[in-house]
Amino acid sequence: MIVRTLLAATLAVAIAGAALAGEVPPPAPNGIAFPQGYQDWRLIAVSHRTDNNSLRAILGNDAAIAAARAGETNPWPDGTIFAKLVFKDATNPNWQAATEPGRFVHAEFMVKDAKRFAATGGWGFARWLGKEQKPYGENADFAQECFGCHTPVAERDYVFTTPVILP
Amino acid sequence: MIVRTLLAATLAVAIAGAALAGEVPPPAPNGIAFPQGYQDWRLIAVSHRTDNNSLRAILGNDAAIAAARAGETNPWPDGTIFAKLVFKDATNPNWQAATEPGRFVHAEFMVKDAKRFAATGGWGFARWLGKEQKPYGENADFAQECFGCHTPVAERDYVFTTPVILP
Repeated sequence: MIVRTLLAATLAVAIAGAALAGEVPPPAPNGIAFPQGYQDWRLIAVSHRTDNNSLRAILGNDAAIAAARAGETNPWPDGTIFAKLVFKDATNPNWQAATEPGRFVHAEFMVKDAKRFAATGGWGFARWLGKEQKPYGENADFAQECFGCHTPVAERDYVFTTPVILP
Repeated sequence: MIVRTLLAATLAVAIAGAALAGEVPPPAPNGIAFPQGYQDWRLIAVSHRTDNNSLRAILGNDAAIAAARAGETNPWPDGTIFAKLVFKDATNPNWQAATEPGRFVHAEFMVKDAKRFAATGGWGFARWLGKEQKPYGENADFAQECFGCHTPVAERDYVFTTPVILP
């Protein structure tokens, strides 16, 4: 009886752990769902910012990659999603002149839906902080901060990044 | 008759162009075949080198990604291939503190096969230059240059890059 109880308790803990590991982060305050599977998206570009010492990988979902390769990027088609993965600068201990990804800062996303996000240039903005993937923003207004920063590139469909074309 | 000849000539040019566009670059001087489809591989890491002002994206084939996610990276398993895509630094015209990919310099690859490449730490090295994807190296000895540079990280299975783990 004790063995059975212990076994049940162990199983319960194991199942709770598994659920936690597979848990989907909560949606952003503006209702954008966490884009699951973004880790498998393909390369759009990379960048390095010296104003906040961060390295970035920009990935795209299938719609983004197809549009980038077809050169149909102004405007980007509905369904496009970009993931920008931001890491603090670190020095490669074996190559001092190389900056490599340090602490993971956040994953941020731009989701194109001209109708749904008409108020912010046709793009939905969202960001999840750190390894805990905590949604960024107190309420839906946070997206105005993102949109404000992207307004100077309105003529590029609000996108700073130029996709790389790999030969 | 003239129309038919012109049509045939036009078609011949069009077909030659198509063949050129789909052409596979020649193998490296050490016999390593060009890894077709690398453009669709997934993210291993990014880096920025200040000694030669270049931004890099490091991608991995399925074997590399599986090993990275499982933490089985010392040694990396046979079948692992990394692609390092190197771009000259450029300044984002709309964000002066951001470095973005400029001219495409080369794609270089590390292919793990402990037996085949036993003489160079179990890794085959190859590089294709520029958009023309010209194989690098006069003869098979070029790989000694690559291996020499990677020898200081022998205890990391000759790999400088640490794969990022995306939450």
